[in-house]
Amino acid sequence: MRVIGIDPGLRCLGWGVIDVEGSRIVHVANGTCTSEGSAPLAERLLSLYRQLTQVVAAHAPDAAAVEQTFVNKDAVGTLKLGQARGIAMLVPAEAGLPIGEYLPNAVKKAVVGVGHADKRQIQHMVKLQMPGVQLAGPDAADALAIALCHAHHLQSANRLTDALARAGGR
Amino acid sequence: MRVIGIDPGLRCLGWGVIDVEGSRIVHVANGTCTSEGSAPLAERLLSLYRQLTQVVAAHAPDAAAVEQTFVNKDAVGTLKLGQARGIAMLVPAEAGLPIGEYLPNAVKKAVVGVGHADKRQIQHMVKLQMPGVQLAGPDAADALAIALCHAHHLQSANRLTDALARAGGR
Repeated sequence: MRVIGIDPGLRCLGWGVIDVEGSRIVHVANGTCTSEGSAPLAERLLSLYRQLTQVVAAHAPDAAAVEQTFVNKDAVGTLKLGQARGIAMLVPAEAGLPIGEYLPNAVKKAVVGVGHADKRQIQHMVKLQMPGVQLAGPDAADALAIALCHAHHLQSANRLTDALARAGGR
Repeated sequence: MRVIGIDPGLRCLGWGVIDVEGSRIVHVANGTCTSEGSAPLAERLLSLYRQLTQVVAAHAPDAAAVEQTFVNKDAVGTLKLGQARGIAMLVPAEAGLPIGEYLPNAVKKAVVGVGHADKRQIQHMVKLQMPGVQLAGPDAADALAIALCHAHHLQSANRLTDALARAGGR
């Protein structure tokens, strides 16, 4: 199963694609969709939409995982992020992909082991789990971490299904 | 010139289309795009995207006007609205329309004359300016008010251009 992880952002939207084969995880690609801060908002959203649509078409994932936005005290920032997140949710939905949503802390806990990990720790663990990976930047690393978090959930669900099947077969 | 006004919202996104012919304003259509509160967020955004894309295709406006979101203290509400607003900006941008953005107070001032008008006053003034109009609801009325606000801006700009041309011709 191929999973795309998406880290929403208006200036820089990270994405990362991995293949999940049983307990094995293989890196496929990662990158960032960017928009010029000086451009009108509608143009920026359209540009992100087109770039991300191309990424999904190029890598044909089977599922998507999107980071749940952390609502903070900065309302203007929350609103900007919300608009970018609308695009980040729309593109995989338009491609008919099931979408998992994960809170930042859940992603960090799944990948680093603790919910309060910093960006450097995330990059370190992403590189450890996918040796030789070239990261396009911190947002792309976060996106790969989101995809890894989704992979862990899929693997746990599969193990549970297997255990139930074995118990049923007894 | 045909203008579509859009009042962004996740549950209910209002739209209204008017024709602006010099100082004359003619109502074309108004309505609401809705999404089920019980559906997953991605499905709701996709549904709004498809409904609004159909509206733009059906009425072929030349320009769009979108209400600027009022950032309030409710961060979760701001985030939801932001995601819907991302769609409300994307659709006209994808159709290649120029997009005007207006703050709620500017819309109220343009249509009712005061910045603190309530929904009922807006509906009343929209009906006065477009006799016989059937409103699909308060969000559709707000969307028509946004389109009217844009029309007033276009008319002022035209009057200015005309005045400058006359002054230059002297």
